[in-house]
Amino acid sequence: MNAAEQRRAVSKLLVVRASGHAGDQQRRYPRWELSNEELQRHLENGVGGVILLGGTATELQQRCRTLRSWSGGENLLLCADVEEGVGQRFEGATWLVPPMALGRLQANDPAKAMLLAERYGRCTADQARRCGLNWVLAPVCDVNSNPDNPVINVRAWGQVPEAAGALAEAFQRGLQAGGVLGCAKHFPGHGDTAQDSHLELPVLRHSRERLEQIELRPFRRLIAAGVESVMTGHLVIPVLDQERPATLSPNVLNNLLRKSLDFQGLIVTDALVMEAITGLVGPGEAAVQAFEAGADLILMPADADEAIDALCSALASGRIPSQRLEQSLQRRRDALQRCIGDQNRTEGISTQDAVETINSVETNDEHRFALELVSATLEVQGPSPIQAAPNGGVTLIRVDGALASPFLRPEAPAIGWPARRGFRPIICHELGISPWHDPPQEDDPLALDRLGEGPVLLQLFLRGNPFRAGRDRDDPWPAAIRQLLRLNRLAALVVYGCPYRWESLRALLPGTIPAAYSPGQMTEAQQMLMGRLLGDEHTLELGNEFTD
Amino acid sequence: MNAAEQRRAVSKLLVVRASGHAGDQQRRYPRWELSNEELQRHLENGVGGVILLGGTATELQQRCRTLRSWSGGENLLLCADVEEGVGQRFEGATWLVPPMALGRLQANDPAKAMLLAERYGRCTADQARRCGLNWVLAPVCDVNSNPDNPVINVRAWGQVPEAAGALAEAFQRGLQAGGVLGCAKHFPGHGDTAQDSHLELPVLRHSRERLEQIELRPFRRLIAAGVESVMTGHLVIPVLDQERPATLSPNVLNNLLRKSLDFQGLIVTDALVMEAITGLVGPGEAAVQAFEAGADLILMPADADEAIDALCSALASGRIPSQRLEQSLQRRRDALQRCIGDQNRTEGISTQDAVETINSVETNDEHRFALELVSATLEVQGPSPIQAAPNGGVTLIRVDGALASPFLRPEAPAIGWPARRGFRPIICHELGISPWHDPPQEDDPLALDRLGEGPVLLQLFLRGNPFRAGRDRDDPWPAAIRQLLRLNRLAALVVYGCPYRWESLRALLPGTIPAAYSPGQMTEAQQMLMGRLLGDEHTLELGNEFTD
Repeated sequence: MNAAEQRRAVSKLLVVRASGHAGDQQRRYPRWELSNEELQRHLENGVGGVILLGGTATELQQRCRTLRSWSGGENLLLCADVEEGVGQRFEGATWLVPPMALGRLQANDPAKAMLLAERYGRCTADQARRCGLNWVLAPVCDVNSNPDNPVINVRAWGQVPEAAGALAEAFQRGLQAGGVLGCAKHFPGHGDTAQDSHLELPVLRHSRERLEQIELRPFRRLIAAGVESVMTGHLVIPVLDQERPATLSPNVLNNLLRKSLDFQGLIVTDALVMEAITGLVGPGEAAVQAFEAGADLILMPADADEAIDALCSALASGRIPSQRLEQSLQRRRDALQRCIGDQNRTEGISTQDAVETINSVETNDEHRFALELVSATLEVQGPSPIQAAPNGGVTLIRVDGALASPFLRPEAPAIGWPARRGFRPIICHELGISPWHDPPQEDDPLALDRLGEGPVLLQLFLRGNPFRAGRDRDDPWPAAIRQLLRLNRLAALVVYGCPYRWESLRALLPGTIPAAYSPGQMTEAQQMLMGRLLGDEHTLELGNEFTD
Repeated sequence: MNAAEQRRAVSKLLVVRASGHAGDQQRRYPRWELSNEELQRHLENGVGGVILLGGTATELQQRCRTLRSWSGGENLLLCADVEEGVGQRFEGATWLVPPMALGRLQANDPAKAMLLAERYGRCTADQARRCGLNWVLAPVCDVNSNPDNPVINVRAWGQVPEAAGALAEAFQRGLQAGGVLGCAKHFPGHGDTAQDSHLELPVLRHSRERLEQIELRPFRRLIAAGVESVMTGHLVIPVLDQERPATLSPNVLNNLLRKSLDFQGLIVTDALVMEAITGLVGPGEAAVQAFEAGADLILMPADADEAIDALCSALASGRIPSQRLEQSLQRRRDALQRCIGDQNRTEGISTQDAVETINSVETNDEHRFALELVSATLEVQGPSPIQAAPNGGVTLIRVDGALASPFLRPEAPAIGWPARRGFRPIICHELGISPWHDPPQEDDPLALDRLGEGPVLLQLFLRGNPFRAGRDRDDPWPAAIRQLLRLNRLAALVVYGCPYRWESLRALLPGTIPAAYSPGQMTEAQQMLMGRLLGDEHTLELGNEFTD
């Protein structure tokens, strides 16, 4: 194999990340998701796998076709973290109750839980194939023995190895019957950690005996059942390796997983962009160490080119023997063999029909299955129904990440850029806690205790929409602005949308108060105004969160 | 023409509404959007047009292909209200500043505004075609002479007829160059109303002279420029018709628009589901009256089957002469002729390539154009940049409809069902006003003045997500529950997600307090729990809002 062929072969072992959206501008996490130009270049040069996140099920279908066309006929591994059904990540497909729900059911009705777990795998597989995926990164085989586990939690199939193993295996059966590859994760078991490997490096201080009794058992079951891939966890298990996390440890991967557990399928790393790894080594060295340790596939290298360069160098220098490369390539081919022929077919529909008449990714039966799972796992106590609240009451709803209207996602410039300057964002809208005194105080309408201390950068998205037009005239923004001015707390005023409101509100401001207006509310308008007001037009720092 | 042929011919004149999403479950407005089964039936039976709303640009592409396949080769009119670019409605395409922005620019730089308006039309047309649409329901020709106009407002191209007419005409030029049909609306002019025809019937009490000087001038320009369709407004103009809104008035449509203004193209009604019409007549009679008045196309009949039945009856009885039907069919054919041949092509790409490798609907040039528009229309005053807030400050952001996380859209069961029982929804999340006292009060953590009066139905969406896991352990929900219990204000507790939190929180409740849990957070889980708690499992009242 010459250098160019070797580079291409090495590239096959990478799995890079892409958004499911067609356009670069639609990416939710542009720091982590390759642009179309980069993606196309990588795929043309031989990169062999893509992990997808973001977009609807329909977009995913289209995206997979696009990616396969860019790979020029080479078989691609197309995967996603759809542990709870394709609908967990891709709207329009079916989102199922999390695995732990079946783990809880298993205590009361093990037979039913097992049947449901197998159907769960089948449903996920069928929809994954319809969307063009051939690899599902599930089941989680971690035993959630630690209720404080922040990262696994309800993603696990159980809190004890029997339940977790049995249900994960049933899920895998369903997945296999549906014709996609599965993935047992996160080896050797992330269930008893109290830290999140996205953020730091967890340590698992158990004996080898304890690992055999708890953590390893579901993995042994899945390997015996023929799971096609195992994903490494970024965690340190001192009894196995004092220094290196499992992902980079020859003792964990080559010895324990390959030899002791006799796993001959694909070993894939967890994402190498995670803090637990990037805190230790650079992108190139991480890929080489993982490969040396026994990994076949490198998932989400922090930098794809650096990873390929480093692997090629390691092969050239002999640090990695060339037969290791060939072994990994063969395992990859073997895995693809198991789903070749299905990639271009949707269930029971010819390619042409599929192209012309693709209906919903979700069948009625699958929707009913989702309902059946909810029904089987819900719990109710006390009397019902409850009394209505004829004189009015409130339903107080707590949720993470409630936002986003399409132009006001959590990563929107109007939110993120001021936040980086110390202005904590508070969104007020008709379904949130009101910023106004009730009963109203005419001269001081804002209930300032609800906002906290400090200067206020006021941003008003105001336009006359059908059905809502009257609403924005009701709020006493002029009086609020005067209130803030009297207290010397108005940092700036920004209006998006209605020019009439802009004209009337800016007239209230002395010349010393910055103010800006755009008729548009979209991201670009926010960027431009935030850039002007905050003075960093060319800086686009991207946040550290890369999934949600 | 026999009865069956006539029914099919009449069906051609309908334009029904569909979601851009592939699946029925994804519909945001199921009360207004036909199901796939109904859509397919209608299209197979000859319905000749679909108006689309909802979904991303990629979904729209796919949806248009599906709809065309269901119509079995018959040419369809596929349209959308994309007055501000396809991205206004379909994420992933380009969303442009609203037309009024160019109206304001026109006062200072008319030449530039005209050039931009034409490019605006071209950009919209190009993207519409890429998505499979052949008809853009724009430009708005209403002159927004009334700043209190709640429904037109920034959708108009100007506040005076010269600006509005010139810019709308420039837009239409761009649209035509891009190969899609346009639509001048809302005849004879909705600019000087203070009411929203979605909600009630506006009245325009002007003389005929005044109408000629203001309202009608942009329409005359657009007709002279060859606009292919005109949409009627649901408003009463007593000087033209004492009783009937324009949509149903022979004097407005047959006399004023056809004869006086010499318009020979397609007359399409505004949506017949709007309150201004449904408050007057039933679905069948509305369609017949509109057709009698001079309309060719019936947009969003309140009931398609009733509309077709009524029209067929009216033709059979002679109430509508049969040549009227043939005239409308001919106008429809003429319009389609202007864009036939483009329907199955994306710009410069063969169908096969398009199918295999559809990239973003938005080109880089179009994205730059959107930026150029923002830049040309933003306004800044006062000093900038502003000071950072090193000791902390707040950016208070006011917005309509900030919600929705995918499972907590404004129409979510967790929000809507309690609201119908008197429990007003308050969402608290990390970007909203906090419900907690600050500094914290250990025994009474909730700042109850922020929630208002009445019983509290508490719904906690709690699960351990990566990056956020610590957050839900910080909030003092146990103390809050005890606080509410002491005040006898806890109506019920609902937990979605984490079983550990469920176990610990429900243990705080006496048996007299209803509580429920589902491991899932999705719509189906909300439906089931709300049904159990509120006692209306089988009732699914749908809201009145049908767009946003």
